[in-house]
Amino acid sequence: MPVTVSRKDQMDTIIAVLRGLGATEEEAYIQADVWTEADLRGIHSHGVQRLPVMVTRIQKGLMKVNVKPELSWSTPCVLNVDGKDGFGTSTCETSLKALVPAVRKNGIGTLTVRNAAHIGMVGYYAERRAQEGLICVAFTTTEVLVHPFGGAEALVGTNPIAIGIPGTPRPYLLDMATSVSAMGRIIALKHRGEKIPEGWAVDKNGVPTTDPDAALKGSLSPAGGPKGYGLGIAIAMLGGLLAGMPAGREVLGTLDTEYRCTVGDLFIVLDPQAFPGGDTLAAGVKKYLDELRASRPATGFKQVSVPGDPEFKLREERLVNGIPHPEEVWHAAEQLRSTIGK
Amino acid sequence: MPVTVSRKDQMDTIIAVLRGLGATEEEAYIQADVWTEADLRGIHSHGVQRLPVMVTRIQKGLMKVNVKPELSWSTPCVLNVDGKDGFGTSTCETSLKALVPAVRKNGIGTLTVRNAAHIGMVGYYAERRAQEGLICVAFTTTEVLVHPFGGAEALVGTNPIAIGIPGTPRPYLLDMATSVSAMGRIIALKHRGEKIPEGWAVDKNGVPTTDPDAALKGSLSPAGGPKGYGLGIAIAMLGGLLAGMPAGREVLGTLDTEYRCTVGDLFIVLDPQAFPGGDTLAAGVKKYLDELRASRPATGFKQVSVPGDPEFKLREERLVNGIPHPEEVWHAAEQLRSTIGK
Repeated sequence: MPVTVSRKDQMDTIIAVLRGLGATEEEAYIQADVWTEADLRGIHSHGVQRLPVMVTRIQKGLMKVNVKPELSWSTPCVLNVDGKDGFGTSTCETSLKALVPAVRKNGIGTLTVRNAAHIGMVGYYAERRAQEGLICVAFTTTEVLVHPFGGAEALVGTNPIAIGIPGTPRPYLLDMATSVSAMGRIIALKHRGEKIPEGWAVDKNGVPTTDPDAALKGSLSPAGGPKGYGLGIAIAMLGGLLAGMPAGREVLGTLDTEYRCTVGDLFIVLDPQAFPGGDTLAAGVKKYLDELRASRPATGFKQVSVPGDPEFKLREERLVNGIPHPEEVWHAAEQLRSTIGK
Repeated sequence: MPVTVSRKDQMDTIIAVLRGLGATEEEAYIQADVWTEADLRGIHSHGVQRLPVMVTRIQKGLMKVNVKPELSWSTPCVLNVDGKDGFGTSTCETSLKALVPAVRKNGIGTLTVRNAAHIGMVGYYAERRAQEGLICVAFTTTEVLVHPFGGAEALVGTNPIAIGIPGTPRPYLLDMATSVSAMGRIIALKHRGEKIPEGWAVDKNGVPTTDPDAALKGSLSPAGGPKGYGLGIAIAMLGGLLAGMPAGREVLGTLDTEYRCTVGDLFIVLDPQAFPGGDTLAAGVKKYLDELRASRPATGFKQVSVPGDPEFKLREERLVNGIPHPEEVWHAAEQLRSTIGK
C-alpha cells in the first residue's frame, strides 16, 4: 500500500534528519527541496528514497555537513567552486546565486562545481534560473552505466543535460539523461516481474535484451544510439574533466556508500537581455510551444505534449493531493527522523 | 560513374564560381572550405552539391555577396552579429575570430548570428575553435522537417548541435542533427530503390514507415524519441529566438530558392585555461577516448568507435585520393565555373 505524504511533511522530515546529522538550515532546506521537487514530478529515482544512502554516507564521513564551499573567480564571468565534500545541492544553488549578478552584468557566466555530493535532478537549477528570467544549460556526470554505441561494457554515465529557458506562463524545461532509460526504472520493472521495453538495455555481451536480470548485469543503451553516446561523452568532458573531476570509470559516490563523490558539474547561464531576441523570448517560447501542443497527433496519441508538461501537471496535482510513496520508502524516512531527527 | 576530385580542384572551382558572382576572396574561400570539409568527411548533403542552389539564391537577390556583417557587442563577452543576408559561413567564422580574444580574456564568450545564409556543417566552427585550444558549443536552426514525439506534422528543424573539445592528437568533435536521419539520406535511398530503416521517419499520419515515398510526404523522426524532440525545441529557442530569428515554420531559405534565409545561430565558446581542469583537459580527453576505443565491442561490431573517428579517417584518405562525387554533381559545378566563374 502506498502512503501519501504532503510536500510540507516530506520537507519537514528530510530537514529534521539532515539537521540531526549537523547540516545547516540552508543545506537541509535546499536538499529537501531538490528531492521533494523530484518526487512531486514523479521522478522518484531522484527523490526522498535517496535519504537512507545519504545518511549512511554522512555517518561514514564520505560526505560532510556544515561546509563552506570555496568560491574562486578566475575571471569576472567564471566561477569555480570546490564543494569540500559537502552537499552538491546547496553548493550548486548558492554558487549559482552568487553567479547571477555576474551574468546580469556580462550577459553570460559559467560555474563549475567539484568535490561535492550528488546534485539531484539537474533541471532544478535550470528551472530556477529560467524563473529568474535567465537561460541555463546544465551538465552533470554520473557513474558509468551506459555502453558505448557498438560496445558491450558500461563506460559512459547517464550524464544528463538540463536546459531552462524563460517562457510564459512558465519556463521551457528540458531535463534528460543521455541514456534511453534509467537503471532505477529497470529495477522497478524487475520488482513487478515485468519485461523491459526493447531498446532500453543490453546484456553483458552487448546483445539487446528485454530481461531485467540480464539488463542489470549488462548496461543501459544510449538514447538515439550514436547520438546519446556522443552527447554522453561530451558531457563527461564538460561536466567532469573541465571541472577538474574524472570521466568514465572513476566517477563514483552517488548511489554507493563506499566512495567519495567524484561527479563534476558545469552550468552556463545567459541573460536574454544581452541578446537580440531577449525582449521577445518568453512570448516566442509560448507561441512555439502552443503551436506544438495544438499540432496534429500521430495515430495512437491523443495530443502532442512538450517536455515538462506532464511533470508540471503532476506537480500541480500532488501539491494538492500529496505525493504517493511505497510504504517502505516513507517508513525508512520516518524511522530516520525518529532516531536521528532534530 | 562517380568522378574523383582533389580538395584543391574543388576549392578552386567553388571559389571561381562565387568570385564570379561578386563574392570577396574571404567569403568565397570560407564557403569553399566549409563545403569541402563536409565532402572530405563523407557528409555530401553539406558539400558542393549545394552550389547550384546558392548560385540561384545569389542571382535572385535572396542572398548577398560582398557584405560587411554588422558586429555589435552588448557586453565584453556577448557579440551579436547581423549578417545582412550575406554568407553564413564567412559571417560565422570571421565573427568567431573576433570573439576569441574576448573568450581568452573572460574565460567565456558567446556569439549570435542572424540574417545570414546557411552556415553549413556546424561542426566546422566547433572543430576550429577546439584546434585553437577552446571549447565550442554551437547550435543552428533549420526548416521544419521533424515531427514532435507523438505528432504527425513536421514542426521542428533537424536543429543540429556541435561540440568541439581540445584533445590530443585532435579534438573531440560531436556534430549531430537532433533527428535520427537527414532528409538527404532518405532521398538517396529512394533513388537507389531501397527501403529506409525502421525508426527514421513517419508517413503523413505519423505512422512509422520504411517506404521512402511515404517518408518524403511525412516527416523525419526525432533521435531518441522525446529526447531528440526536446533538444530540437531547445535549439530552436537558443539558436533561433535568442538570436532574434523565428522558431518553427517560419525558418526558411536554406534549401529553397524562394525565401530569404531565416535561420539563427548561437555559439558558446569557453577557454579551458579559466577552469580547474584546463591544464589536463586534452590529456584527459585522449585517455577517456582511448578507453572507449579499446573497450569490448558488442556482438556484431568489430571495434568501438568514438564520434568523429570515421569522418577523420575518411578525410585523411580523401586528402590523398580525392573526393568521389556523382557525375551530375561535379558536372553542375564545372558548368557553373565555365559560365560564370572568374
